[in-house]
Amino acid sequence: MLRATFIKPTFLFVLFFAGFSAVAQNKTVNVSDFGLKPNMHTDGTPAITSALSRCKKVKAAKLIFPKGRYDFWPDRATEKYLFTSNNDEGLKRIAFLLTGLTNFEIDGQGSEFIFHGYISPFVLEKCQNIAFKNFSIDWDRTFDNEGKILSVYKDSIDVSFSKEYPYKIENNLLLFTGDNNTLYPYGSLLEFDPVRRETAYMAEDYYTGPNVPVKSIGEGKIRLYVPGIKGTPDNIMVFGAAQRFCSAIVLSDSKQIKLSDINIYHAGGMGVIAQRSRDITLKNINVTPRPNSPRMLSTTADATHFANCTGKIVFDHCLFENQEDDATNIHGVYVQITKVISPNTVEVKLKHEQQFGFDFLISNMSIEFATDSGMNTISNNTVLSATRINKEYTLLVCKNKLDKNIRVGDVIASTAGYPDVLIKNCTIQKNRARGILLGSRGKIVVEDNVFHTAGAAILFEGNARFWFEQAGVMDCIIRNNTFDNCNYGVWGNAVIQVGSGIEPAWRDKSRYNRNIVIENNVFKQFDPRILNIYSVDGLTFKDNTIVPSTSYKSAYPGANPFVVNNSAHIVIQ
Amino acid sequence: MLRATFIKPTFLFVLFFAGFSAVAQNKTVNVSDFGLKPNMHTDGTPAITSALSRCKKVKAAKLIFPKGRYDFWPDRATEKYLFTSNNDEGLKRIAFLLTGLTNFEIDGQGSEFIFHGYISPFVLEKCQNIAFKNFSIDWDRTFDNEGKILSVYKDSIDVSFSKEYPYKIENNLLLFTGDNNTLYPYGSLLEFDPVRRETAYMAEDYYTGPNVPVKSIGEGKIRLYVPGIKGTPDNIMVFGAAQRFCSAIVLSDSKQIKLSDINIYHAGGMGVIAQRSRDITLKNINVTPRPNSPRMLSTTADATHFANCTGKIVFDHCLFENQEDDATNIHGVYVQITKVISPNTVEVKLKHEQQFGFDFLISNMSIEFATDSGMNTISNNTVLSATRINKEYTLLVCKNKLDKNIRVGDVIASTAGYPDVLIKNCTIQKNRARGILLGSRGKIVVEDNVFHTAGAAILFEGNARFWFEQAGVMDCIIRNNTFDNCNYGVWGNAVIQVGSGIEPAWRDKSRYNRNIVIENNVFKQFDPRILNIYSVDGLTFKDNTIVPSTSYKSAYPGANPFVVNNSAHIVIQ
Repeated sequence: MLRATFIKPTFLFVLFFAGFSAVAQNKTVNVSDFGLKPNMHTDGTPAITSALSRCKKVKAAKLIFPKGRYDFWPDRATEKYLFTSNNDEGLKRIAFLLTGLTNFEIDGQGSEFIFHGYISPFVLEKCQNIAFKNFSIDWDRTFDNEGKILSVYKDSIDVSFSKEYPYKIENNLLLFTGDNNTLYPYGSLLEFDPVRRETAYMAEDYYTGPNVPVKSIGEGKIRLYVPGIKGTPDNIMVFGAAQRFCSAIVLSDSKQIKLSDINIYHAGGMGVIAQRSRDITLKNINVTPRPNSPRMLSTTADATHFANCTGKIVFDHCLFENQEDDATNIHGVYVQITKVISPNTVEVKLKHEQQFGFDFLISNMSIEFATDSGMNTISNNTVLSATRINKEYTLLVCKNKLDKNIRVGDVIASTAGYPDVLIKNCTIQKNRARGILLGSRGKIVVEDNVFHTAGAAILFEGNARFWFEQAGVMDCIIRNNTFDNCNYGVWGNAVIQVGSGIEPAWRDKSRYNRNIVIENNVFKQFDPRILNIYSVDGLTFKDNTIVPSTSYKSAYPGANPFVVNNSAHIVIQ
Repeated sequence: MLRATFIKPTFLFVLFFAGFSAVAQNKTVNVSDFGLKPNMHTDGTPAITSALSRCKKVKAAKLIFPKGRYDFWPDRATEKYLFTSNNDEGLKRIAFLLTGLTNFEIDGQGSEFIFHGYISPFVLEKCQNIAFKNFSIDWDRTFDNEGKILSVYKDSIDVSFSKEYPYKIENNLLLFTGDNNTLYPYGSLLEFDPVRRETAYMAEDYYTGPNVPVKSIGEGKIRLYVPGIKGTPDNIMVFGAAQRFCSAIVLSDSKQIKLSDINIYHAGGMGVIAQRSRDITLKNINVTPRPNSPRMLSTTADATHFANCTGKIVFDHCLFENQEDDATNIHGVYVQITKVISPNTVEVKLKHEQQFGFDFLISNMSIEFATDSGMNTISNNTVLSATRINKEYTLLVCKNKLDKNIRVGDVIASTAGYPDVLIKNCTIQKNRARGILLGSRGKIVVEDNVFHTAGAAILFEGNARFWFEQAGVMDCIIRNNTFDNCNYGVWGNAVIQVGSGIEPAWRDKSRYNRNIVIENNVFKQFDPRILNIYSVDGLTFKDNTIVPSTSYKSAYPGANPFVVNNSAHIVIQ
């Protein structure tokens, strides 16, 4: 058909692009080429390891899954010791480990990814321009355990478990089990209301640890002895996972990451945890319990979490519900000075166990020295070198002499960049603890969201004595949101709250959060407490609508709606 | 003074050697140059890290310690994830980590090294021609716990602890504690006789795990509920450490190692564990409880252990006593075939948890395929490549096609080399379990030693179904030893014993151990049982002296002294 003498320029042009397209098509890798077909119910992990290796080798643009169910076990998964901020460190088995990949996409095409046991679904390290889309993440057996409360006595309760939550009793201790005698230890208890499908009204955490005396009271039924325990028959007692070992998606030292159309039905940890990364977009990410299941919990920790991230973080049309901790927490990390060694050298320590190994200090990074008491910046400096001693300690040499006021106990954090944050069109509800913890010094916009949280919907955190999380907003707009009956639990004192770790004596000397505008929101309130702040410079509350509600009975009926302490430039209209 | 015109050749010669000597002297590094002085009672670990770094940099010949006490804490120690055979893996803090060093010596000059908490004293990786000498290793707080039996009841005992063994009781569970609330979990119980200072006569291990119900019966006194527990008041109950996490000296992938004049008073694991190493000499190594202490235990596991070592292993004038497991165990490691993938490719698995991560298969290594039932060699082959999937699984490609009889479940081990072993002038006594486990196919000589072991003094082990330890001697001489009242405990059925893991049905088809000569030894026997073997080809027992003893009462007074089954060429004179 092709007659050379008659080829027109336009035809040549078409040929050129067909060739280009063929090359691009070659750059799509299909998991079925590695023997992995949908609905096989066998371990897909080795095929994924091979497929990702191929993708890296051929610089593939895309890895695709024919739509269906895929199962992944840890047995033959890639292994790596991970230090992930606010998670438990450890030698982990990883289904999808992406290291140093660029310009790459994983498209599940609507597939279900079902994980079995202690396996981390997705870990990205040093990647750039990566997209994940169109799949769900779930486990066949959850890391938490949920039982129905049968009876409540003084200092004990009776609980029944369905066969979704196998267990054994040894030496009067309750051990939750899975395949191959895998154990699923619990560390705390929390009651859920199965009708509202949220934490039970004003239910408290019982931090029992795993060693609670129990006895069997029949098949699938136990009596659990916890001093002072309370509960309501027919409610669900959730036995919270003792560790955050298998977060669904871990992003480390990566940039330009787009996650879209992903359902995270469960994780033994967080939904998405990003650290030392920049430019992350979450669109249509749904952290929610598996549909049509009786499960109360989705993930066993925060839906999302961001530590020392920069660039832009965008949440668009996300649903974060029923996770066992906050919907998001965006913060930096403080290290503490443990020794002043020379005029420009200090030894510093990562303090919180779940921050161990979180190396963020790098040469030429600009840093702040701050007090641990009020988190006031003492001075700024620049890193000359940072040498890790071990996962806890680092030797830090600064370019400039230390300020004379620096002392052991002061903290240091990066000031090299803070993310701009946009949270819009999201629904955040029914989870344990708070909604969003805003701790970035970049521009923050929170708009068009619906909050129905058991604790504060929005918390301004930051803490240099326990959590060691650097925070303190500088420019934050909260507008056009609906706060729908928040604070029906014990984790807050107002819908929007400062909860920074500044001791009362220091609050007047600190202005840790600044320039907050709260406008055009609707507050549906069964409880009077709307705002509770301290150590703020600049907050305007205007044009908001407050609607009374009878959805719950207020535990604080006479409380002051607006509590403002040790602050300046506060306008409440 | 120096007048060039009159310089004689001899003077030049002296000058030359003075210069040479000065260089050599520079190559001795003294820890005191790093601020570490004896008896400071502060953490010496950072100074050691710096000193070792200097030694490596200047290619020092020697690191010396002015005589005295040095203390080491884990806080600022170097960190590395270690997979050490027959130990528990983990991210460890290491006081002396030597990597890639050659021609180097550490001379303690009689110093005491006292460790605190979870720290590994010495780890060598890829080192050559290294000597350690003249120091002792101990911990301020041991990993095991020892209490005095006060009373014994049906299914419970009362035990009292001195303040050397702090503990707390939580939820009716006994938690042993140390500084900073460090926990020292136990996993088993074993009774010791404080008069004989050895395991109590016929005392059995109670593998309780850590979750034994207890109650306090006064300060430092507990009642412990263990079904069927036995014991004798005033004896010592040792609560064995749950993990082998801190062995004293770990040698990995190293050669020409000489350890001499070292006292190992304690370790949370083994005294010396060597893996994939060659040419190791232990001279005057004393594994013994801290002198003048009431401690029953020295190390909480084997005094020494050798996995996949080659070259020559020499023990000369060593004392191994009161450790919680064997004095030595010299063996290879079997992996199990889990999949046959192609005519020359198999997937293999490390089976025992404490062998996970023990990668020994390397390109060009000669290997054997053997049955798991009788450990008979099926065929030999050579490794083309071995690719680690994770700490459990490896993909193994062989140079030659697999034998047609190879099946899943068969095992594979190295045949690339076995160590010659010389054990002479050693005393092995009073420990839990056995004396020496001989599993090398090299030349073995055991001479001029004294054994007083609770189990078999000499055991020919090997096991492809539980321990996965390759053994089977080929040339073993046992001569001029004194076996002094062995088998007063439950860990043996004769003084010299085959205990290979070959099921009775397979024993006649296997000749796993060969060419054993037992001559000119003295057997002091309260118990008739001298020899118990099976699956042996070639054993001569001659010119030995058997002396009756009344030191203990025999539990087996009518037993046959020589039990020989499924063997050939056995001469007992």
